[in-house]
Amino acid sequence: MKRTYIEDLKKHIDKSVIIFGWVNVRRDHGKLIFLDVRDKTGIVQTVLLPKHKSIHEVGNELRPEWVIEIHGRVHKRPDEMVNEDTPLGDIEIEVTEIIVLSRAYELPFDKDSEMNLDTYLDHLPLTLRTSKSRAIFKVQMVIMAAFREFLAKEGFIEFQSPKIIGQDAEGGASVFDVAYFKTTAHLAQSPQFYKQIMVGVYEKVFTTGNVFRAEKHSTTRHLNEYTSLDIEMGFIEDHNDVMELTSKLMRHIAGSVKKNCKDELTMFDIADVKVPNKIPDIKLRKAQKIIGEMYEEECSNEPDLSPQHERWISDYALEKYNSDFIFITHYPSEKRPMYIYDDPKDPGYTRSFDLLFRGIEINTGGQRIHDYDALVQKMKDKGLDPKQFEFYLQAFKYGMPPHGGFGMGLERLTAKFLGLMNIKEATLFPRELNRIDTLLSE
Amino acid sequence: MKRTYIEDLKKHIDKSVIIFGWVNVRRDHGKLIFLDVRDKTGIVQTVLLPKHKSIHEVGNELRPEWVIEIHGRVHKRPDEMVNEDTPLGDIEIEVTEIIVLSRAYELPFDKDSEMNLDTYLDHLPLTLRTSKSRAIFKVQMVIMAAFREFLAKEGFIEFQSPKIIGQDAEGGASVFDVAYFKTTAHLAQSPQFYKQIMVGVYEKVFTTGNVFRAEKHSTTRHLNEYTSLDIEMGFIEDHNDVMELTSKLMRHIAGSVKKNCKDELTMFDIADVKVPNKIPDIKLRKAQKIIGEMYEEECSNEPDLSPQHERWISDYALEKYNSDFIFITHYPSEKRPMYIYDDPKDPGYTRSFDLLFRGIEINTGGQRIHDYDALVQKMKDKGLDPKQFEFYLQAFKYGMPPHGGFGMGLERLTAKFLGLMNIKEATLFPRELNRIDTLLSE
Repeated sequence: MKRTYIEDLKKHIDKSVIIFGWVNVRRDHGKLIFLDVRDKTGIVQTVLLPKHKSIHEVGNELRPEWVIEIHGRVHKRPDEMVNEDTPLGDIEIEVTEIIVLSRAYELPFDKDSEMNLDTYLDHLPLTLRTSKSRAIFKVQMVIMAAFREFLAKEGFIEFQSPKIIGQDAEGGASVFDVAYFKTTAHLAQSPQFYKQIMVGVYEKVFTTGNVFRAEKHSTTRHLNEYTSLDIEMGFIEDHNDVMELTSKLMRHIAGSVKKNCKDELTMFDIADVKVPNKIPDIKLRKAQKIIGEMYEEECSNEPDLSPQHERWISDYALEKYNSDFIFITHYPSEKRPMYIYDDPKDPGYTRSFDLLFRGIEINTGGQRIHDYDALVQKMKDKGLDPKQFEFYLQAFKYGMPPHGGFGMGLERLTAKFLGLMNIKEATLFPRELNRIDTLLSE
Repeated sequence: MKRTYIEDLKKHIDKSVIIFGWVNVRRDHGKLIFLDVRDKTGIVQTVLLPKHKSIHEVGNELRPEWVIEIHGRVHKRPDEMVNEDTPLGDIEIEVTEIIVLSRAYELPFDKDSEMNLDTYLDHLPLTLRTSKSRAIFKVQMVIMAAFREFLAKEGFIEFQSPKIIGQDAEGGASVFDVAYFKTTAHLAQSPQFYKQIMVGVYEKVFTTGNVFRAEKHSTTRHLNEYTSLDIEMGFIEDHNDVMELTSKLMRHIAGSVKKNCKDELTMFDIADVKVPNKIPDIKLRKAQKIIGEMYEEECSNEPDLSPQHERWISDYALEKYNSDFIFITHYPSEKRPMYIYDDPKDPGYTRSFDLLFRGIEINTGGQRIHDYDALVQKMKDKGLDPKQFEFYLQAFKYGMPPHGGFGMGLERLTAKFLGLMNIKEATLFPRELNRIDTLLSE
């Protein structure tokens, strides 16, 4: 007989089945022992009757997280025993055989209990097994798949971007060093250079993968290693083309999560994601004016929004546009990387954007400089040496169309979809100032 | 009027169109100037007639890789002018307007000419634009998509694996060091630990991403950074379950490449990939015996096959089983990592396999130890300190089913699908002993 997945058990009422899984909870009522068994598809209650003596003996020994094979018969529960809080609450399995596949040591705590974040993170191989964690990373997988699905349909080509690099696109000090044989290399903060080079090859490209930021802050918003979803597209008019595609993409992702993660979403007390057909956009200066007027905080000379400003502008977007998203455009030229395109119609400001989602920036993009001479000049203006960027500059020397793109953080996106307070809850194995698994916390 | 992609031009015979693209080749016949224009979908010939004087002036200035917008009319070519070697050889565009979107400097060489590998690699932003390179990485994308598609259908969950790690799964000296704030961390050689931990969460998982090997050899088979396609599955009987899934997966990938890359495959003079329903498998000792008998080379005491041995055994598999693939199983216990499961029926040997494809190992896998005490003991036997693996060991301490999986190199797979001699041709931006882009070659 073949294994039946738990979610399929209802098709086998009054029949014999074999299930595999973990003891999720064991309840000993003396004569009766109940085991809630968990597999990748769900949880079902099984019952060990006193008449099967040898099974009862095994049942006495079993503990949470033991891995077992169960043979038994599926029964419908009598009406008064139905548990409506769980999908399989109207059936149970009468056990006729138990085979222990693997034992577990005594758990350090009940894995489903409330715990502080450090305890959770110190025990991820156990704590990731909770229904909540399993739901979070299922949603994350669906977001990732929806991202790829949308872009493939739009004719984008996926490519693999290297992580060990020489010069970094973003500049600044927050780059990790790698001892690379006789030299020092770096870990990429983004696939920026490579996705631009690939526009010269395929016009429209995307790549997903880990990026690395050696930033020393430890906040609920930051990670030292995260998953970046990147696109770059050629033959655009300006940054508006990128924002238009981004609107469509966010609608597609929200739709896919809603459709494929029904059970998961009900576990989180969170409203449907609101994505208008066209996500509203306002210039940074306008946003700062709104903050001054509505929240009486003067910030019009700052080059960026603070976390509090982002929350306020998101509130404003929800109220004014019924949108969980809003683009902020036209960041000042001096504060954006050298590859960003200046807006000729708005001197000193760039064709750049940040996309805010429920109070936090999740996506940064814009149009890039495509003219070789202009890019070399911009490097010099920023105090950079074009000689160090010769490999990248070849793409522009040998003909590059007007183009733009964005980078988006998968973990922030996941956290905001589910209303998680800390980005570490949306990251399987978060790397931070004081943590690589348990290595640094010990 | 909207842009028409070149591959769609045949739907617009005798109509006006706008195309965007690069000047692929310019042929000046005095009165007539021909431009082969390339976009992401194909190449088409355009003609600049002398009667359009201002266009001719622009045409005189144009050079390869200039980025242009062309307005014109699509014509069917007269029979005697049809070029049957190219998909759009029976049409051309009579140009009525040219807008230069971006100029290119003079190319250092004709990008489609024969060149040595170093020249190719030094100029990737240009040389990746050739039809050959574009075909290679299109095939690579299709392999990647087929891998995910198959596993999603089989109920595997995708997850994101960290690259910055403390302890490495594979051991050995070939690991890169990263300066991680006040400590030294490493770059992951594989997602091994994390995918095993994730079996405890979702039973069947996969992950794709960059892995890093600080190996000092520079060969046609090795890279210091490559893309690893990894799976891990719970509740297996033994390594045969993993090999069975792998057989199905390779059939699916080969089928997808054949279906989705017809044009690309015709560019490479290569036979269809032969994947039997069940890929044959032989033990290492049997393979060594065959090599001794057929090729008169004694290697029966070696712990692994040499590159030449792999080629011989692949020849044997093709001849005997009509298969481009063959599994070699049961590598000696002392030469495999600590997490590999010893075969109780064949003491001293493991439930492990390598998968050879057209003469090279592309995939390594097997069953893993799932019992906590056995794994701790194996670590000690290998001279490792279990304390250093405490995070990983939690997965086993708290109940792990019998499981196994594999890791597969995307670049090797791509190279062998297309008959490329050097793996660097199947890697967009190869990292090697003497190269990170052009950083180390300068």
